[in-house]
Amino acid sequence: MNASKSATLSDDTAYESASAMTPLALRTAIRRGEHTGPTTGYASGYLQGNLAILPNSYADEFLQFCAKNSKSCPLIGMSEPGSPFIPALGKDLDIRTDLPGYRVFRGSADYTSVSDLTDIWRDDLVTFVLGCSFSFEAAITRGGVRLRHMDARRNVPMYVTNIQTAAAGRFHGPLVVSMRSFAASDAIRAILYSDRYRLAHGAPVHIGDPAQIGITDIMKPDFGNEPVIEEGDIPVFWACGVTPQMAIRNVMPEFAITHEPGLMLVTDVLAEAAEFSL
Amino acid sequence: MNASKSATLSDDTAYESASAMTPLALRTAIRRGEHTGPTTGYASGYLQGNLAILPNSYADEFLQFCAKNSKSCPLIGMSEPGSPFIPALGKDLDIRTDLPGYRVFRGSADYTSVSDLTDIWRDDLVTFVLGCSFSFEAAITRGGVRLRHMDARRNVPMYVTNIQTAAAGRFHGPLVVSMRSFAASDAIRAILYSDRYRLAHGAPVHIGDPAQIGITDIMKPDFGNEPVIEEGDIPVFWACGVTPQMAIRNVMPEFAITHEPGLMLVTDVLAEAAEFSL
Repeated sequence: MNASKSATLSDDTAYESASAMTPLALRTAIRRGEHTGPTTGYASGYLQGNLAILPNSYADEFLQFCAKNSKSCPLIGMSEPGSPFIPALGKDLDIRTDLPGYRVFRGSADYTSVSDLTDIWRDDLVTFVLGCSFSFEAAITRGGVRLRHMDARRNVPMYVTNIQTAAAGRFHGPLVVSMRSFAASDAIRAILYSDRYRLAHGAPVHIGDPAQIGITDIMKPDFGNEPVIEEGDIPVFWACGVTPQMAIRNVMPEFAITHEPGLMLVTDVLAEAAEFSL
Repeated sequence: MNASKSATLSDDTAYESASAMTPLALRTAIRRGEHTGPTTGYASGYLQGNLAILPNSYADEFLQFCAKNSKSCPLIGMSEPGSPFIPALGKDLDIRTDLPGYRVFRGSADYTSVSDLTDIWRDDLVTFVLGCSFSFEAAITRGGVRLRHMDARRNVPMYVTNIQTAAAGRFHGPLVVSMRSFAASDAIRAILYSDRYRLAHGAPVHIGDPAQIGITDIMKPDFGNEPVIEEGDIPVFWACGVTPQMAIRNVMPEFAITHEPGLMLVTDVLAEAAEFSL
């Protein structure tokens, strides 16, 4: 028993609590197949990212799309064409192996789920990493404001709005938002806390009446789970990382890769970094 | 004509535009009786303050009241007992002469309006200066968000809420709020802009349903003018400097002095000062 326990403890990653784990230790565990599930709650305090990998022939237009829609598509990193590395985002980071799951699209809405991109990697692929909501959600809960979807162990509800993104080349589509509802005073705090995290969608884009942004039934989200809304709550809407995924689906490139929802790239960049240079 | 014009231009204060005027130049003009009206819009970028002058026997309790209710009573300066000077708030500042108008209370709700306190000054008076809403309103409009009460040339509407302040000694009373209504996206910006100005009431205390804080008819404010609320607006409520005035009225000291509404103390402290030491 003792020998076995010692052997386990000598591993870099075992027995560390999820939130205290370093990003490098988590990525290493993912690469080894030791961590296969969602990354939420791991490596607390570090930016996690949405993934979009496109052939180089789409890269300039997608970069422009991100620049024009920085609230829904906050770019935190980008690779050289063909390179699976983004040194600025993490030590020893390999985009082909360091996420727990990927979706591979080949010119249609159907996709294949894989846990390793090594065999299908191409010399013309460009990787984009976009900030996600985990950082601002962590800031809100650290501030003592509870998130109803987390308490209910549900996914956050997401909605397609009637707000159009700014098109760039072939990329276009609606703004998708996530919704969290709060008592009024908590809504104010959530707005203030999230604003700091500009690379994680920042402050909300809407509060109050869902119909004003084209949401006809708040109890029926387009993605995620049914919301938990308590008496007197005010709904608060943030730009959502599903926005770029819908824009990519509108173009339907012959090849594209995204992360599996919830299975994100965990970077070495501190969530507190107010700005980040590529 | 030329001689006359030269003579006028040699004056410190004449011909300066209101917003570009320095606080010292404005206070000097007030002291000389050359400026007698509201201070809104003057000496842009500098903190303006609400005034409360009390006998020393009330000072400790009122200071505690401010400390416990910093959102409605943000203390930006305090004098020594009997001293009409607060050097930290302004060069050559004399509290007896440097506001355009004062209200003098002598143990009842009735008051006398005066423009100079020199003849009635007492050796036991302590002056408190509290931040006011001008600084955050200026930040909101600088950010490109319009204030409906300003566009309509009205006073901001103010309401007594069902939220109680934290009592301190004899001082107690309800929280009074001011209300500004906005389109949703502007409401979010107004929340973010105002939060920076912690010494000017900071972020709002409530958004949305007025009934949640005991306001039964938003069209009938307790102070100020009827609000302008446009279709789809969301009301946003900030803690208001009338709160300490109501607390003082609840005590009804034998002697107390406040400023005339809108006729504030203009300080040398930059509105951007995030924190201020007494």
